[in-house]
Amino acid sequence: MEDGMRQDALKTALAAIEAVLPENAVRKAIKSPAFSERLALSGRIYLAAIGKAAWRMAKASVDVLGPVVERGVVLTKYGHSLGPIPGLEIIEAGHPLPDENTLLGTAKILEMMKGFSPEDTVLFLVSGGGSALFEKPLPGVSLEELISVTGDLLASGANIVEINMIRKRLSSVKGGRFALAAAPAHVFSVVLSDVLGDRLDSIASGPAHPDNSMVREALAIVDKYGLSLPPGVLEALRQETPRRVPNVSTIIAGSGKGLCEAAMEEIASRGYTPLLMTTTLDCEAREAGAFLAALAREIRESGNPLKPPCALVFGGETVVRLRGRGKGGRNQELALAAAQGIAEMKNTVVLSVGSDGTDGPTDAAGGIVDGTTRDALATLGMNLEAYLNDNDSYNALEACGSLIRTGPTGTNVNDLTILLCR
Amino acid sequence: MEDGMRQDALKTALAAIEAVLPENAVRKAIKSPAFSERLALSGRIYLAAIGKAAWRMAKASVDVLGPVVERGVVLTKYGHSLGPIPGLEIIEAGHPLPDENTLLGTAKILEMMKGFSPEDTVLFLVSGGGSALFEKPLPGVSLEELISVTGDLLASGANIVEINMIRKRLSSVKGGRFALAAAPAHVFSVVLSDVLGDRLDSIASGPAHPDNSMVREALAIVDKYGLSLPPGVLEALRQETPRRVPNVSTIIAGSGKGLCEAAMEEIASRGYTPLLMTTTLDCEAREAGAFLAALAREIRESGNPLKPPCALVFGGETVVRLRGRGKGGRNQELALAAAQGIAEMKNTVVLSVGSDGTDGPTDAAGGIVDGTTRDALATLGMNLEAYLNDNDSYNALEACGSLIRTGPTGTNVNDLTILLCR
Repeated sequence: MEDGMRQDALKTALAAIEAVLPENAVRKAIKSPAFSERLALSGRIYLAAIGKAAWRMAKASVDVLGPVVERGVVLTKYGHSLGPIPGLEIIEAGHPLPDENTLLGTAKILEMMKGFSPEDTVLFLVSGGGSALFEKPLPGVSLEELISVTGDLLASGANIVEINMIRKRLSSVKGGRFALAAAPAHVFSVVLSDVLGDRLDSIASGPAHPDNSMVREALAIVDKYGLSLPPGVLEALRQETPRRVPNVSTIIAGSGKGLCEAAMEEIASRGYTPLLMTTTLDCEAREAGAFLAALAREIRESGNPLKPPCALVFGGETVVRLRGRGKGGRNQELALAAAQGIAEMKNTVVLSVGSDGTDGPTDAAGGIVDGTTRDALATLGMNLEAYLNDNDSYNALEACGSLIRTGPTGTNVNDLTILLCR
Repeated sequence: MEDGMRQDALKTALAAIEAVLPENAVRKAIKSPAFSERLALSGRIYLAAIGKAAWRMAKASVDVLGPVVERGVVLTKYGHSLGPIPGLEIIEAGHPLPDENTLLGTAKILEMMKGFSPEDTVLFLVSGGGSALFEKPLPGVSLEELISVTGDLLASGANIVEINMIRKRLSSVKGGRFALAAAPAHVFSVVLSDVLGDRLDSIASGPAHPDNSMVREALAIVDKYGLSLPPGVLEALRQETPRRVPNVSTIIAGSGKGLCEAAMEEIASRGYTPLLMTTTLDCEAREAGAFLAALAREIRESGNPLKPPCALVFGGETVVRLRGRGKGGRNQELALAAAQGIAEMKNTVVLSVGSDGTDGPTDAAGGIVDGTTRDALATLGMNLEAYLNDNDSYNALEACGSLIRTGPTGTNVNDLTILLCR
């Protein structure tokens, strides 16, 4: 085992995740000049936090700002609140499906958005899960209808961008409509992004972001997946969403890009030349592993695209193609596939890890492999390829001490993959 | 359509293929100092050419060397001889399965390998297909047995390296044994490589290359795929292959690496900064296309791994996962998948082409796409993803003028893929 290199890779991944923890992301945003400008005004500061990291983002804000925060509501997933926060009301609700508490919590936030002056500021803390947790259907649409449309889209194989495009049009708070409700106050939006490419109109369905989609695009999706919709829903889809939300400023305080950048900084400090390859990797996990191995071969053979010591850094979220019945996750499968491709290669390590600390339905966050991994498995009588074919990356990596376990990190900005060559 | 960029990509691909045509590869090798040294000796020059490009390599040699060539045999696939060559005997034989003419042609070459002195030189021209075309089973093994073992391995899913490891041990000419037969003459081997990573022990099963494999590895393959073998075959597998063949020098005159290097040179002359990513890409074609799109997004977004104008260059041979019933090839599928990922991206082109001019069971060599390709198909009422799911890349690319047709090029050094951003 390449012990020193594995340590370098692991410590880099942990440092990168640390950098995008909700607390660190929020602290950075609050210390920004843009927010200091708001604090200098005579207006009041309100706080609204939505998403799975809402409690942690809100707690960090109050820890920094203290009693400056007039009032606030935290709307998070069941089990994601870690206790009271002075001055804030905390509501837990359903995820991934909205429920009665979703409507209740959303109503509380909207209720707070009244009687504002232009000097007032809404510190709006947004994290993954916000689409489901923050919801009030448009008049004429029931929550049940909204849920069933979303379910139909999921079942039809629609992608997250398409689902959000429909969902936001059925909502009173998505697609920029929340920002309009907060006017004339200024909405200072701090975003922890779990959407590839950080499309602000997609993250939590963009409550404080103008909507770029057109009615005809939404109707084209209905067509594409052959949805049959109640009249109230169709009517809602035909209403325009705000093209402009002038009372908003946004900071993406934590994202897959930030995760990669933090990894690059850390790995450079360990003596490897870093190169950012992509922050939006989205192909099949196993094939991504094979692709990484092809890059590793070239680095070893010709010093291209970079001479060792070097680190190629990838962010994104791959997908697992299920064909077996084993246990694993996309990061573990990517790592195990790479282990096959880099077998017997010296001074070469591949790490892949989910920033949320949970990779697939397992207790691991990802995997870390090197040129000895395949043979280590063979010595145990385990055939790497057979485990890959069974999607059983967890048990293979577990057997040879190649799982990464961080526990839930409380953040979620997609995955980090590093190819390390020395 | 990005017309200027498409022209840059196409002309680059054609120039790269030109550089690795058999004639150009041979001319370069013959003009090398190493071969000039042999010519300066008092000995005679014999020629043996095996493989699908044997005729073209032999013709180019005789065109350059003239009557210096004492005698020679060309052993190629049926239909691959283009007429007589002065001083050479030309034999066509079976491919991919050896036949009686294989044995006849191989016997003629071996017969020529007699009465040599150390000053004599065998100019040994090797190209793809050589494994099947150049064959004489070891005593105790019949050609039928050899063919059936190869067939069993193919059917079991053994890879080409494993198949060659077995096959060379059943042969009198493979795994360095041909070079021993030519001793004390010097074997000057000129190789056109179609094996990823140019492993000389794999190309044409390495007739003039020492064999690095061990008896136990060969027997492990028999085990792995549960082959049941006749006693003569098992006996042959237990014989050692030459560890050293001191009377050989080798030039890899054409290879996937050469193809990529020629492409880098040409694209640089057109004003793009080139970066070689890998020469051994071997994952699924569609996923490779998606991976390239993720790289393109980052180049557009952040100028990583390279600022435009730039070109990422990939060599190798991807595989198609069959799930539909359409028509296509790995290069066309990679290009079409990339077209999905780069849809609506400006100044971005992806080209993928087989150096042999034949991509899958089609008359096309590959495909070339840009950010407008998906919409061009949509305008024709064609859904890109549906064509991908049906493995019908040919018809999709044909419809929007995105096929590359070169006709058979006469060379085969794997594929070339270019991502071009301006």
